[in-house]
Amino acid sequence: MFLVRLIYASTSADFLNYSDYQKILAVSIKNNSASDITGMLCCDGRYFLQCLEGERQVVNRAYSRILNDPRHQDIMLLSYGEVSSRHFSEWSMGYVALSSSASAEMKPDVLLHLLGSPEDVDKPKPNAVSITITHAQFLKYSIKREFDPYLLSDAGSLALLEDLAKVFAG
Amino acid sequence: MFLVRLIYASTSADFLNYSDYQKILAVSIKNNSASDITGMLCCDGRYFLQCLEGERQVVNRAYSRILNDPRHQDIMLLSYGEVSSRHFSEWSMGYVALSSSASAEMKPDVLLHLLGSPEDVDKPKPNAVSITITHAQFLKYSIKREFDPYLLSDAGSLALLEDLAKVFAG
Amino acid sequence: MFLVRLIYASTSADFLNYSDYQKILAVSIKNNSASDITGMLCCDGRYFLQCLEGERQVVNRAYSRILNDPRHQDIMLLSYGEVSSRHFSEWSMGYVALSSSASAEMKPDVLLHLLGSPEDVDKPKPNAVSITITHAQFLKYSIKREFDPYLLSDAGSLALLEDLAKVFAG
Amino acid sequence: MFLVRLIYASTSADFLNYSDYQKILAVSIKNNSASDITGMLCCDGRYFLQCLEGERQVVNRAYSRILNDPRHQDIMLLSYGEVSSRHFSEWSMGYVALSSSASAEMKPDVLLHLLGSPEDVDKPKPNAVSITITHAQFLKYSIKREFDPYLLSDAGSLALLEDLAKVFAG
Amino acid sequence: MFLVRLIYASTSADFLNYSDYQKILAVSIKNNSASDITGMLCCDGRYFLQCLEGERQVVNRAYSRILNDPRHQDIMLLSYGEVSSRHFSEWSMGYVALSSSASAEMKPDVLLHLLGSPEDVDKPKPNAVSITITHAQFLKYSIKREFDPYLLSDAGSLALLEDLAKVFAG
Amino acid sequence: MFLVRLIYASTSADFLNYSDYQKILAVSIKNNSASDITGMLCCDGRYFLQCLEGERQVVNRAYSRILNDPRHQDIMLLSYGEVSSRHFSEWSMGYVALSSSASAEMKPDVLLHLLGSPEDVDKPKPNAVSITITHAQFLKYSIKREFDPYLLSDAGSLALLEDLAKVFAG
Amino acid sequence: MFLVRLIYASTSADFLNYSDYQKILAVSIKNNSASDITGMLCCDGRYFLQCLEGERQVVNRAYSRILNDPRHQDIMLLSYGEVSSRHFSEWSMGYVALSSSASAEMKPDVLLHLLGSPEDVDKPKPNAVSITITHAQFLKYSIKREFDPYLLSDAGSLALLEDLAKVFAG
Amino acid sequence: MFLVRLIYASTSADFLNYSDYQKILAVSIKNNSASDITGMLCCDGRYFLQCLEGERQVVNRAYSRILNDPRHQDIMLLSYGEVSSRHFSEWSMGYVALSSSASAEMKPDVLLHLLGSPEDVDKPKPNAVSITITHAQFLKYSIKREFDPYLLSDAGSLALLEDLAKVFAG
Amino acid sequence: MFLVRLIYASTSADFLNYSDYQKILAVSIKNNSASDITGMLCCDGRYFLQCLEGERQVVNRAYSRILNDPRHQDIMLLSYGEVSSRHFSEWSMGYVALSSSASAEMKPDVLLHLLGSPEDVDKPKPNAVSITITHAQFLKYSIKREFDPYLLSDAGSLALLEDLAKVFAG
Amino acid sequence: MFLVRLIYASTSADFLNYSDYQKILAVSIKNNSASDITGMLCCDGRYFLQCLEGERQVVNRAYSRILNDPRHQDIMLLSYGEVSSRHFSEWSMGYVALSSSASAEMKPDVLLHLLGSPEDVDKPKPNAVSITITHAQFLKYSIKREFDPYLLSDAGSLALLEDLAKVFAG
Repeated sequence: MFLVRLIYASTSADFLNYSDYQKILAVSIKNNSASDITGMLCCDGRYFLQCLEGERQVVNRAYSRILNDPRHQDIMLLSYGEVSSRHFSEWSMGYVALSSSASAEMKPDVLLHLLGSPEDVDKPKPNAVSITITHAQFLKYSIKREFDPYLLSDAGSLALLEDLAKVFAG
Repeated sequence: MFLVRLIYASTSADFLNYSDYQKILAVSIKNNSASDITGMLCCDGRYFLQCLEGERQVVNRAYSRILNDPRHQDIMLLSYGEVSSRHFSEWSMGYVALSSSASAEMKPDVLLHLLGSPEDVDKPKPNAVSITITHAQFLKYSIKREFDPYLLSDAGSLALLEDLAKVFAG
Repeated sequence: MFLVRLIYASTSADFLNYSDYQKILAVSIKNNSASDITGMLCCDGRYFLQCLEGERQVVNRAYSRILNDPRHQDIMLLSYGEVSSRHFSEWSMGYVALSSSASAEMKPDVLLHLLGSPEDVDKPKPNAVSITITHAQFLKYSIKREFDPYLLSDAGSLALLEDLAKVFAG
Repeated sequence: MFLVRLIYASTSADFLNYSDYQKILAVSIKNNSASDITGMLCCDGRYFLQCLEGERQVVNRAYSRILNDPRHQDIMLLSYGEVSSRHFSEWSMGYVALSSSASAEMKPDVLLHLLGSPEDVDKPKPNAVSITITHAQFLKYSIKREFDPYLLSDAGSLALLEDLAKVFAG
Repeated sequence: MFLVRLIYASTSADFLNYSDYQKILAVSIKNNSASDITGMLCCDGRYFLQCLEGERQVVNRAYSRILNDPRHQDIMLLSYGEVSSRHFSEWSMGYVALSSSASAEMKPDVLLHLLGSPEDVDKPKPNAVSITITHAQFLKYSIKREFDPYLLSDAGSLALLEDLAKVFAG
Repeated sequence: MFLVRLIYASTSADFLNYSDYQKILAVSIKNNSASDITGMLCCDGRYFLQCLEGERQVVNRAYSRILNDPRHQDIMLLSYGEVSSRHFSEWSMGYVALSSSASAEMKPDVLLHLLGSPEDVDKPKPNAVSITITHAQFLKYSIKREFDPYLLSDAGSLALLEDLAKVFAG
Repeated sequence: MFLVRLIYASTSADFLNYSDYQKILAVSIKNNSASDITGMLCCDGRYFLQCLEGERQVVNRAYSRILNDPRHQDIMLLSYGEVSSRHFSEWSMGYVALSSSASAEMKPDVLLHLLGSPEDVDKPKPNAVSITITHAQFLKYSIKREFDPYLLSDAGSLALLEDLAKVFAG
Repeated sequence: MFLVRLIYASTSADFLNYSDYQKILAVSIKNNSASDITGMLCCDGRYFLQCLEGERQVVNRAYSRILNDPRHQDIMLLSYGEVSSRHFSEWSMGYVALSSSASAEMKPDVLLHLLGSPEDVDKPKPNAVSITITHAQFLKYSIKREFDPYLLSDAGSLALLEDLAKVFAG
Repeated sequence: MFLVRLIYASTSADFLNYSDYQKILAVSIKNNSASDITGMLCCDGRYFLQCLEGERQVVNRAYSRILNDPRHQDIMLLSYGEVSSRHFSEWSMGYVALSSSASAEMKPDVLLHLLGSPEDVDKPKPNAVSITITHAQFLKYSIKREFDPYLLSDAGSLALLEDLAKVFAG
Repeated sequence: MFLVRLIYASTSADFLNYSDYQKILAVSIKNNSASDITGMLCCDGRYFLQCLEGERQVVNRAYSRILNDPRHQDIMLLSYGEVSSRHFSEWSMGYVALSSSASAEMKPDVLLHLLGSPEDVDKPKPNAVSITITHAQFLKYSIKREFDPYLLSDAGSLALLEDLAKVFAG
């Protein structure tokens, strides 16, 4: 009954196209909703930065699957530990697109489709939401302007996450 | 002369119906008002999460009665300790309904009846008040979306309580 | 040259009537004004809760007089210590009435008379002011709804005082 | 998987004799050993002060049994909460006798019998051990010299426990 | 059930002689032992510095008696408040003599008599014990070399007390 | 290169008249502006309370001059130490008048004259500004209502200063 | 260049025998020595509890290998994060045996063989060392007596580790 | 992968004219943008105060170049260390002019030219921005009114920087 | 009744010889003993570093005398403030000689003479004592090896003082 | 008058031989002694790790010289800031040799020669001293076993320094 938060970085496999990203997000929302994982996924077409919050065993299994998923390469754990509360309790998987990364930015209609999930009737907010992050927001915690989550420290990835959570809370 | 706060989880007995919930709340308000216990009761038709604040002996006696009340099963203490001030000093028993649990939500007229208690003339606020909690509010401190207070840690149950107290203070 | 704050509880003698309360407050304001004591007096016709702030020797002498004053019985010190600043520097003796205790509540004209002290011309605020406290405000720090200052802890009496000081400050 | 510590006070039923105390301790050691509860029991022939450490559900069940055990009366919870480590991990039930309470003090041969439990072969220390507490040790945290655990505050009962744990650790 | 510590300073009445000091200490030990007050008395033939630890009401009554005791003059409260533990739980009234104040120093046989109290058989330590304080020990917390407890601040009187408690503990 | 803050109290010499106060403030502003001292001067015709902020040697020399200035008597240091930032960086010498002390209150035209210093062209704010302090503002940190800076403690003089700095900052 | 510490629990595959444990430790020491990983391995023939300290990428790769190693099952991350210093800088892989788990305890000659690594000539201490842990040492941080690292919290696994590191440091 | 912040003071070489300052800023923006250094440059025609944030090696190389740049003299490090986040992530080099130093203040059209950098299309804010600092803002942390960054302490330079960062964020 | 500590640096006047130092110390001991000032004097024949502890007004008067004493030049306050306890309560004026400064080091017989003060019979320790300080002990808190107290910061002078107080305490 | 500590890493130029190291240390001791810099130098024949403590301008000049010294390459600042006290006040330049780096380890007679500096007669300890560091001591704060100071973080270099300072203090 431990509640944990896990943040990792990974590199997108070369062969991924637009519909792959759609699938990753859609499956992630579906799976997380079923296993009560919440979190956010940030990608720019090259790298992923993902946060998973949930029960310890459930999050470990999800991470194990990701480690063996050919679409993710060079997976690196940035931060992990028990938490007393979630940052993303309102989203099964919040979606963060980099402002200059067209390939990773979801088209409005796709997101609309993903957000309109009718599965949880008592929750007025959608299961996913999309926000945009600028280079400066990332640079604040990193040594490089280009979105490269491998450069984030444990504290930096957590601080960036808290900034994003505030944007999500809007 | 110790002021304590006690939070416990329990499971509603199978045979409870709508009027049983009414009775539990009504009796709770009446008894607490007489013994200067304040607090809140959260239920969804299946589980109870209750907070009791008051004099140590009085709260222990109330908890002892609850432990032997056939309507409560699998009672588990989540948090207990001396406090310097109450969170719910304005309500004999605040009522919290889950947004999706129709069975546990009090009908307006019932609540009106409960709230209109004329016993304490110098207090403009009623003895009870009803607020609603969403799955996401609960999920923030829990590993599961379904309202299951047994999953709450000591710190988590206290943090959820403080969130609710702010809504009550509204 | 020590600045101290003293809080005590006492029981009103049986033979006190309305004009006795007027006298207690009037004399208190007069004496405190002369000896630079500030503070507040809370009474409900049965109990007194009083706070005295000022020079250590002066406050000790005032407390010694109170201990031998037949109008006060069962006097009990709740809190005492050096402070770096006063909570009630603007009132020689703030007056706090319980909302349901008609006997202890000063009539407007009496208060007006007490407040109109012309002795300190450069101070636009009166020497005394009257606010009202509800049962719930007291219950927040106590095990009982009835105003019974003997039930307050050291920390509780200080916290209640700070709540009242905020009301005084408006 | 929550590790909790629970401390309660109770009054010994009138009809208890020496062999009852033996039985309480022996059964307690046996049960705790089976359910991985650790702790200590302090009694003087009139009052009990007991600490239970272990898994949350297991400790709650033990406490529920105690509440319905006719040998315990006026049971009052003093302290309860999650802990990151146990104070009494080396004893299934440490035994504390008051120096002046002959009736509650175990006879050496009885203790020897209790301590010689061969069930846990890799553990050189016995499941139980007996230490003595003086009135002054108790008075340090209490308003009265007589051993009366009902007088202990939450913090006081924990501090006394830590003093005893140091004596146990020897 | 509040445990408090009270420290006050007073001036010895002019007409006190050696046997008066004996009496004060003897009666103090007797009374405190009966009401579970512990503490220490420091005197030099001119001033008293006394610490009382115990139940709030009991300590207030003792202080009220002292305020009306003609042998004490100019009584001034130095420190008062709830405490989680006592400093002097092993002595009904520890006795502290100034090294240069012959008049206040108890003769060995007198102390022996006082210390041999057979009332509390299970306590190997005596009810009273005598230690000596130098001018330098007092000067550490005071603006003057001469023992004058009126010069002590709240914090200073507590710090001096803790120094003395360590000496008592040996 | 140490930045220090010094606060002292002094008594105005008997022979001072209105133009003397004008001169003290005017010379103070002129000298401080030249040596980059900032601060505030509070006087009521009887006492001075002054704060000086600046380089350690410069402030020491200014204080040495004040100690030998016949217009200041009974000079007493209240607070002194290195600081990481100034409270009065915008005023060469802020002027604080007591509301009831006509003699010390600068006439508007005099202040206007003093404030209109054209020496520092890039600074839109004047070198000096005048605010008023009430008895209650002073009483908050003092044992007496009358403005007597000798009664202020180190912490009290600093806290009063911070209150005044906030008023200056408007 | 991030230095991290990772602690995980796993279940030994059924088909492991004594020489498998030898191999796991020997290979672990060899690999860690080459990649500057330090840490400790605790096993009882059924479960593993392992701590890895080193460069972030190197530790992530080691953990990824372990996740795909058929000898480890149900791998669960307990604690992970950047650290400013290592706990086990003197051992490539410290070995901890449970006192009652004969199957996992290395035979002296095997350990001797492992410890006698001549590769690092300037380091007088061996690359590995073996200590023993009792049930009570584990129970201190766990809800069960049986060695089951899945029951450890993040904080508990770290605290147990620090206890072990002290034993290693001897 | 260490993120550091470096603050230094230097003296402008005598032969610098207006176009030199333009060049310094322009080249600084260009270089920093390429190497992901952010920061701010403050100059008054005589002294420079500069802050550089970025990857440790990159910042060290930039500082090494500055140390050998004939336009900078008497270079002195004021503050240096790893940081978890940048203060100036939105500007390649913020520009701070002293209000009274005409020579160092960039002409609007020059700044406009510098700010209009089209290189980073996804960032709506310019690479540089110009704010003005008054003598009082500097005096707050310094012993002298004249802008002389050599007088700033480590803490003072950091505090001034944070004040400026707030103005930039404005 | 404020207890303060004052530390200052000064330069010895040129015309001082050995017997002058003797006189300064002897008079200092005599005066301080009379006014209950305690402290230490450190000199090397060129500079003085002195600490004075005592009642605020008394210490201010002593400092005022020093400021007008022709034997002291360039007097600079290093540290000043209220303290809860003295560092040098056992010495009217501790004497600290630099190990290499023969001129300032007291001859044994002179010190013996000074130490043998019979004025305070109940105090076994002398009014003064002499210890030696090395360059390294001073350099620890200073930028220069030569004893130059003007180089000490507020914190540095206090830390050096605490080091010396420990040496005095032996 | 700022006291600072600077730690940097550098790479030894290829052409350095044994007598070069001797010269570096000898000149360093001589220069530092003259400018009151203290510190330590750690080298293994390939890398240098050096700490410099002293006046801010003096340390900056020393660092500037080092940056232009062809014997040092790839110089990188690890840590820099004001300090309240020195770690190495007793050594002009402590010398730390890696246990396995024969080339950098000073021969006893060379060190003896360096240590026997007669310049500072009142200081019994030598200007330099040599201690040895193992790989494990370095590995504690680094990701690699090989001595490579570029891998140290700000905090790591400070912590290693404190470990070494303790060894020096021995």
